[in-house]
Amino acid sequence: MKLTVDVKHKTYDIILERGCLKTLDTYIDTTKRYFILTDTNIPQSLIDEVVAQCPNSTVYKVAPGEQSKSIQTFEDVCQACLDFHMSRKDTLIALGGGVIGDLGGFVAASYMRGIPFISIPTTTLSQIDSSIGGKTAINLGKVKNIIGSFYHPDLVLIDFDTLATLPKRHIQSGLVEALKAGLIHDKSIYEIFKQDDYEDHLDEIVYKALCMKKWVVEEDEKEVGLRKTLNFGHSIGHGIEAYYNLETYYHGECVGMGMLYFLDDDEVKKEVIKILEKMGLPTHADLDIDKVFDYITMDKKAHADTISIVKVREPGKSYIEEMSLSEVKAILERNPL
Amino acid sequence: MKLTVDVKHKTYDIILERGCLKTLDTYIDTTKRYFILTDTNIPQSLIDEVVAQCPNSTVYKVAPGEQSKSIQTFEDVCQACLDFHMSRKDTLIALGGGVIGDLGGFVAASYMRGIPFISIPTTTLSQIDSSIGGKTAINLGKVKNIIGSFYHPDLVLIDFDTLATLPKRHIQSGLVEALKAGLIHDKSIYEIFKQDDYEDHLDEIVYKALCMKKWVVEEDEKEVGLRKTLNFGHSIGHGIEAYYNLETYYHGECVGMGMLYFLDDDEVKKEVIKILEKMGLPTHADLDIDKVFDYITMDKKAHADTISIVKVREPGKSYIEEMSLSEVKAILERNPL
Ligand SMILES: NC(=O)c1ccc[n+]([C@@H]2O[C@H](COP(=O)([O-])OP(=O)(O)OC[C@H]3O[C@@H](n4cnc5c(N)ncnc54)[C@H](O)[C@@H]3O)[C@@H](O)[C@H]2O)c1
Ligand SMILES: NC(=O)c1ccc[n+]([C@@H]2O[C@H](COP(=O)([O-])OP(=O)(O)OC[C@H]3O[C@@H](n4cnc5c(N)ncnc54)[C@H](O)[C@@H]3O)[C@@H](O)[C@H]2O)c1
Repeated sequence: MKLTVDVKHKTYDIILERGCLKTLDTYIDTTKRYFILTDTNIPQSLIDEVVAQCPNSTVYKVAPGEQSKSIQTFEDVCQACLDFHMSRKDTLIALGGGVIGDLGGFVAASYMRGIPFISIPTTTLSQIDSSIGGKTAINLGKVKNIIGSFYHPDLVLIDFDTLATLPKRHIQSGLVEALKAGLIHDKSIYEIFKQDDYEDHLDEIVYKALCMKKWVVEEDEKEVGLRKTLNFGHSIGHGIEAYYNLETYYHGECVGMGMLYFLDDDEVKKEVIKILEKMGLPTHADLDIDKVFDYITMDKKAHADTISIVKVREPGKSYIEEMSLSEVKAILERNPL
Repeated sequence: MKLTVDVKHKTYDIILERGCLKTLDTYIDTTKRYFILTDTNIPQSLIDEVVAQCPNSTVYKVAPGEQSKSIQTFEDVCQACLDFHMSRKDTLIALGGGVIGDLGGFVAASYMRGIPFISIPTTTLSQIDSSIGGKTAINLGKVKNIIGSFYHPDLVLIDFDTLATLPKRHIQSGLVEALKAGLIHDKSIYEIFKQDDYEDHLDEIVYKALCMKKWVVEEDEKEVGLRKTLNFGHSIGHGIEAYYNLETYYHGECVGMGMLYFLDDDEVKKEVIKILEKMGLPTHADLDIDKVFDYITMDKKAHADTISIVKVREPGKSYIEEMSLSEVKAILERNPL
């Protein structure tokens, strides 16, 4: 299966194919030089598979997890590119989850002011969401994604087989972004999640969620309007993530909890809670409201008194509301459960 | 005087006007929030002048000089933006020389994936060259400009009056980029430099050099062809800069020395040496050829055996030659004087 993303100044393909990593030469010139960025949790067999087909490559591993989306790691990776004598004719491959994609994308965007970039996402989250859309980012302390750029890959290779080794909790956490896609724009995805056998439809879920994101990104690449709806669940979600030091909960888990605050319909909210529980995901975390609120407003204007909040009226229908800070705080204080 | 730069996805104005900083509200909405990045060598009176007109601004000063084009300073400035609660509606102003422009531009490109950016260049080098073209950059150790992005400002304000406080050596060093402009594309600039009273024609030199650069950048924004000619003098120049730890010689001084290696015509070379001497600029530095050569090849492919070198056939006429590494080394060894 192939999707072609057509943004303003670039067109690139997303290949969705079980086993596509076994035949890399169908998609890329394997004789070229590749800098493969990955992390120490990615199965060695997967790395070996890619390296075996790309003899002129080097592998650079960072520590797994959010901690690697730091300025320090960014510098280390750039230095490693330099040590590999990377030029603009060589390509950076990000092989891993959303962390590797976000970090690798920012390196590819910045090293020599931009080098070719291929994304091989290996988690549900990165296959569904972060590998498409061109957002790259690193964090500054606890403030997520505050430094980065819009930089699209030249190619995305999604091989569902890579998910075989991904721990269940990560699988489920990543699927929250698909559930989100269903809630904000595509009711049919939401309907799949309501089924008990939703896990048998993983390929379909990923494909549909990607199609939704492709549409949104093509309509509004730079997030001036429509694309903001993708932030559904993220305002409070990021607050929870920061409050827990980007450690205790996974990104998707936080987004899942964050969504519950802004579902207009109580019946839908009950349904979503049931879905999250079925998926083994948390629906509520202990929070110090003041601190979470501080994180939420951290990157807002000093004197801003509103935040753009994405709300869901009914499954598949979302809208944006400018909400006063005090209102957001009141909503935070009111436990959504 | 006004120049309008028209690159692929953006159009922006360059205002060249003595005293334009005194009437900022002619050009910008002075009531908005501005993050003014500058360095500790910029005259306080200049900073005060801007701040007095922009009451909702904050000033952030970094150490002067090339050392501030570091990842560490980049992080510090981003953190300061965060502390100022910068949002995408606020603007970063780079008030200073090429260092502040390059650093500030990269912060503006990366903070929140891009915020508005105004450049107020206060050195000859930045007025002539670095404030136009959209190249932003920081260094990695001694390797110059290896991390950055293409990010154009929204406005450039060139006030020749700011040069009044700039030390003579910096004035002259910056003018080398204009001399370069003359040598590669516009003989009429070169002719001015040959006159004894060239210093009385500073405004004209800056204007002509900017026009040349504007043309080149509009033709080839991403440096796939024509724009490479701007690197005249820079291959060996950067090598000299790195060898001296980015300290002993100024950027323009190194470019000046670097140009001498690639002037085809011996008569022209003699003339250029005379011009540099008249300007009080160095024409030769003591070098360890092997080390300089290492710096020159640092960011080249591991197995690359050629470098693109810009050469000048006669004043105003340049071309690019793919030169073998050994040839470059031989040329380095042969003192150009
Ligand atoms: N750029 C975007 O548009 C966007 C969108 C959503 C989320 N994100 C970002 O994505 C990040 C989260 O991504 P993630 O959930 O993929 O986390 P992740 O990259 O940390 O991966 C999760 C864990 O699984 C391991 N792993 C990855 N693939 C594996 C595999 N096939 N087998 C075994 N282990 C494997 C990783 O090493 C890691 O330990 C966050 O930083 C978030 O901000 C970005
Ligand atoms: N982006 C580009 O296209 C481009 C092109 C050429 C050079 N550059 C970069 O520009 C940098 C050099 O720029 P530069 O020569 O302007 O150096 P600079 O920014 O370091 O300025 C030189 C010195 O003069 C001081 N200064 C600046 N304006 C002053 C004023 N009006 N009065 C008194 N003092 C003043 C500064 O504080 C500094 O100490 C290098 O890093 C080089 O790589 C970039």
